[in-house]
This record gives sequence, structure tokens and C-alpha cells, in this order.
Amino acid sequence: MKIALDVMGGDRAPGEIVAGAVEGAREHKLEIVLVGRRSVVEVELARHDTNGLALSIVDAPEVVSMNESPAASFRAKRNSSIAVGLGLLRDREVAGFVSAGNSGAVMAAALFLLGRIKGIERPALATVFPTLPGKCLLIDVGANADCKPPYLAQFGLMGSVYMEKVFGCHHPKVGLLSNGEEDSKGNLLVQEARPFFQSVPVNFVGNVEGKDIPYGLADVVVTDGFTGNVALKLSEGIGEVLFQLLREELTKGLLSQAAAAALRPAFRRVRQRLDYQEYGGAPLLGVEGACSIAHGRSSAKAIKNAIRVTRQAAEGGVVAAIAERAGRLVGATRGT
Amino acid sequence: MKIALDVMGGDRAPGEIVAGAVEGAREHKLEIVLVGRRSVVEVELARHDTNGLALSIVDAPEVVSMNESPAASFRAKRNSSIAVGLGLLRDREVAGFVSAGNSGAVMAAALFLLGRIKGIERPALATVFPTLPGKCLLIDVGANADCKPPYLAQFGLMGSVYMEKVFGCHHPKVGLLSNGEEDSKGNLLVQEARPFFQSVPVNFVGNVEGKDIPYGLADVVVTDGFTGNVALKLSEGIGEVLFQLLREELTKGLLSQAAAAALRPAFRRVRQRLDYQEYGGAPLLGVEGACSIAHGRSSAKAIKNAIRVTRQAAEGGVVAAIAERAGRLVGATRGT
Repeated sequence: MKIALDVMGGDRAPGEIVAGAVEGAREHKLEIVLVGRRSVVEVELARHDTNGLALSIVDAPEVVSMNESPAASFRAKRNSSIAVGLGLLRDREVAGFVSAGNSGAVMAAALFLLGRIKGIERPALATVFPTLPGKCLLIDVGANADCKPPYLAQFGLMGSVYMEKVFGCHHPKVGLLSNGEEDSKGNLLVQEARPFFQSVPVNFVGNVEGKDIPYGLADVVVTDGFTGNVALKLSEGIGEVLFQLLREELTKGLLSQAAAAALRPAFRRVRQRLDYQEYGGAPLLGVEGACSIAHGRSSAKAIKNAIRVTRQAAEGGVVAAIAERAGRLVGATRGT
Repeated sequence: MKIALDVMGGDRAPGEIVAGAVEGAREHKLEIVLVGRRSVVEVELARHDTNGLALSIVDAPEVVSMNESPAASFRAKRNSSIAVGLGLLRDREVAGFVSAGNSGAVMAAALFLLGRIKGIERPALATVFPTLPGKCLLIDVGANADCKPPYLAQFGLMGSVYMEKVFGCHHPKVGLLSNGEEDSKGNLLVQEARPFFQSVPVNFVGNVEGKDIPYGLADVVVTDGFTGNVALKLSEGIGEVLFQLLREELTKGLLSQAAAAALRPAFRRVRQRLDYQEYGGAPLLGVEGACSIAHGRSSAKAIKNAIRVTRQAAEGGVVAAIAERAGRLVGATRGT
């Protein structure tokens, strides 16, 4: 199996991206197609021992920057690493594509080059969220700032398939994020979306609150891309600030410093459970191909793990399973 | 100065509420009017040494339960502790009112009995959010699940006044919560709300992201009541789960246990900074009176602190200042 990787995208590209590819090829035993400026990629590859690894390069002379307009970048740069990589996926040259680049540009190009899965009106970006018992999938975290009610039910379907196929989660509980657990709670979007969950093949458990996410009351938490994005970034910020406050307090005084040093491995284990790098990539669900968008700040480790989950999505047949279940209900949940 | 307290509202009423009143009267040197069933209040008061404290009782024979419909409860129970307490505030018998009861019922009754401040289309619930440098005010956290664009600018005005008058925050920075910092980001509501911030007298700093809240990039973070409620409850959940994970990890092994014991005071200091009980009550801003809604799970300490912040809002003249500034712009930010 081959996975294509956008070598030019991300705050730490190309160095960390290529390093992640090398680690990924070694650890996951698959072929990685490095998409980017050939000369740049070759220089980076030369820093590593790639003996025996399945790494190839596909030249893409153009680069989309992080702040470029998604639609304009796609029109202007048909030879960007994003467009070339997604072209390989469309032509079945590779089984998946990973980019840590401009997420809007990746979404726009994926929609154009891969197309939507039939029955899915809008692709959505999902992310794995650490919880007390393990993890859940939050969907959408930014692809659609404004949603129509049926989209949310379709997000629930896609998230449910992903949790099943990639993490082996049996009969995932799908919750609708709201401002209260009672059926009467919700904004207009949530209230109008709720009936649509009855017509999709998911284990719908009703409304969940913000607090229920970290406690893991649902395996899939569905929300619009605005609320999901706020929730995701807020969580990142709270985690960072909390550890910073703890570090400040724990290093006041010599006794504290000694005790804190003794506890470093325990802290590391907790941080690791909360680390976005463990899952590396946010799957873009609803397009005709296994495509993941990694965090802009991705390290080599994050890229390596993004390659792993993208491979799992491809091997698990996530796209085909979404297409099959969404196909059964075309018409039933379509928007107004 | 007198503050009225709903003794019957909250998961731990009446015991913890009366205990909070006793502590508050002692510590804050003010008169507290306990509103509730006289016989119940008398039994609870008898458990405490109230010698020399200014505590009085106003009988309110009816109780609104936590799950009752707000509008129906108000129509059916004109002698509830919520309605009687707010009546005292309307009649200027007291300077403020605190309830840990059914928040929907308090909001409905406050709107009816106190009325809206002229120029403010919708009251909003605000809450103090701990940040790395100190604290910010998140508004709205649940009063309005769906908002029109001008409401958000009015929330910014009210939050700004509150941070100035209660916490002495100079020229508070007001941010609009969005899914990205760039002006182009936001859902439709945020995009349409942004221009309205130009016509209110606040120090508007533009969009802020979820991550910016704990980092304290704004003193007032404005959002609709749906997103704000999700953000608030998510934060509570993350804090609780993180400390639970840390506790589990830190008590594995004897060395860890000893080290963790040495660090207990440091942990306590961090938890205290993040503790909702420190501010106790969420001010309901936009009604004609200083009214706070305390957390349903409020302890005596939370109630004591809610009394303190409600008194500060009353003494600081928050209602008059909002009325004055909103009066200047009536028409300018009114909705469509």
C-alpha cells in the first residue's frame, strides 16, 4: 500500500515532514510517496538513512502557503503539492493522502479533485479527542462553520463508520453536542437536526453536553464546524495552560522540585494520553478517498502517526463503508 | 446593603445555601435576606451560631424544582423563592439577588419582574473564566441559544462594564469568539456581528479563538449562549478529568505517592485558581437589577462568594453603567 504525503505543508515543513515519512516507512512497512519540490525533498532525504525503505518522490513545483485563500490557491496552483498529491489519490496511484498544510486549501482541492461521496452533502473534518475511558471522535471541527440540520446526521454516520473501521469501536454511541442533555435543549440547528438522526443507521444516544466529551459519554460527538473548532482549540489551550500552571507551582521550592522530578514519568504518561500527535491527522470524511489533515505544527512523530491512521482508514474501507450506508438513505436525510 | 438569597434553589439546598449565607453575613458584613419556606429556613439557621449577624427571613411557600419549565413555573408559582426574591429586588428592598436554582426559571422571572435595560435586547449570562494571567468574562453562557448579530455587540458592552466595575479591569479587551483569528473567519452570526462592535463603546480586539480564552488574550470573550455553554461545560469537564488522570498516575507506586503527597499544596493552589466556587455566581446582565445565578452544585463557599460578587456588582453600579452606555446607542445596534 502507498500513501502520498505533502512534504511542503505545515509550519515545520519540509524537515519534520520528511523525517516523519522516514520513520513512518520504517515503522509501518509501507511505501510513502513524497510530494513536493524534488530538489528540496532530495536534500531532506539525504539527512536520513533510507536504506531499504520504500520512499519515492513525485515532483510538485508549487507550494500553497498557510494563509492563502483556499479557492484561489487551487485555481492558481494546479501543480502544488496539495493538488498533485490529491491527484495521485484520485487516480488510485496511492491509497491515502496526508497534508499538514493549509487545511482550507486541502479541503477545497479534495472536494474538487476527489468529489463528495454520494448521499453526503458536505465533507467534514473529524478529530480524535482523548477522554477518561479512551477516546472519542469530534466531528465537524472546522470544515463547515454553518450547517443545515441533515448535515449533522450525515456527520454522525461518517464518524460512526470511522470509529468502527479504524478503532474497532463496536456500535459507537453517537451524541449530538448541545447546551443541555434534555431533548428540549439546543439551538435551532440542534433541535432541527435531531429528527434526522432517526433516519441514519447509527446508535444515536441523544444530546450530550460539553462536559460529557472528556468523560467519554459518546464515541462520536457531532457538532457544527464552528462549535467544534472552538471546542477543539479551547481544549488544546486548557491542557497547555493547566500544565504550565502546574509546572510553575510544582517548581516553587526545593522539596517541590525534587518531588516534581520524581513524578516526571507520571506527568509524561498523562500528557501523552492528551497529545494530539498520537493520532496525528484529522480525517476529512465525506470525500472519495482517504485523506487526512495533520496539525499545522506537526512534528515528525505527528506525521508518522497521521500516516498510520490514514493507512488504517484506507485498509478499513472507510470511504466504501460510508458510501454504502449513505447510499441506502439518499433522499432520507437530504437538506431542504 | 441587603442581598436576597434563594434558599430553596440548588442541588444542595437548603443546607449549603443557608451555611453560605451565614458565612457571607459574617465575612462580608452585610444583611442577607433568606427567601424560602420559613419553617425550613429556621431549622437550618438553628444549626449555626448566628449571633450578631444580619440575617432575616422572607417567607416564600413555593419551590421551583430544577427541571421545571421556566415559563410555566413562573406562571404557576408566584410565591416561589425565585419570584419573591426577585420581587424584593424590583421593589428596591434589597440591592441584589442570588439563586442557585433552576437557571431558566430565574432568567424568565427576572425578565418579567425586573425588565430589560433599555438598549439591551436580550439579557445574557456571564461567567468568570480562569486564565493564565488571571481571569476573563465569558458571555453568553446559556441565556440565548440563538442570537441575532447586534445582541453579541451588546453582550460585549455589558461584559466590558462588568469587568470594569467589579474587577477594576481598565479598558477591558473585548474579543469575539470565532473559529480563527482572521477577520474572514467565523460563522454567519460572527461575520454579521462584527460590524456592530464598531458602534458600541468597547475596546474591541476582533476575533479570538478557543485557545485564546485560557491564555487570556481578551478580558471579555463574547459568544452566543449555545457555544458559550458548550465551552464552559467542556472546560469544567476537562479540568476534572485532567486532575483525575493525574491523581491516578501520581499514586501508582510508593515513591510516587510520597512525592505526590509533598506536592499536594501546589496542586491545591492550581485547583483553587480554576475553581468555579471562587466567583460563585454567574451574573445575569441586561436586567434592571444585580442578579446572579450560582452553579446548581453550589457549596456554602460558592454561595458566600456569589453573595460577594453580587454585592460588588450592586455597589459598582453595573446596572446603571450598562443603562447609561446602552442608552447612548439605542438604535445604533438594534437588531433587524
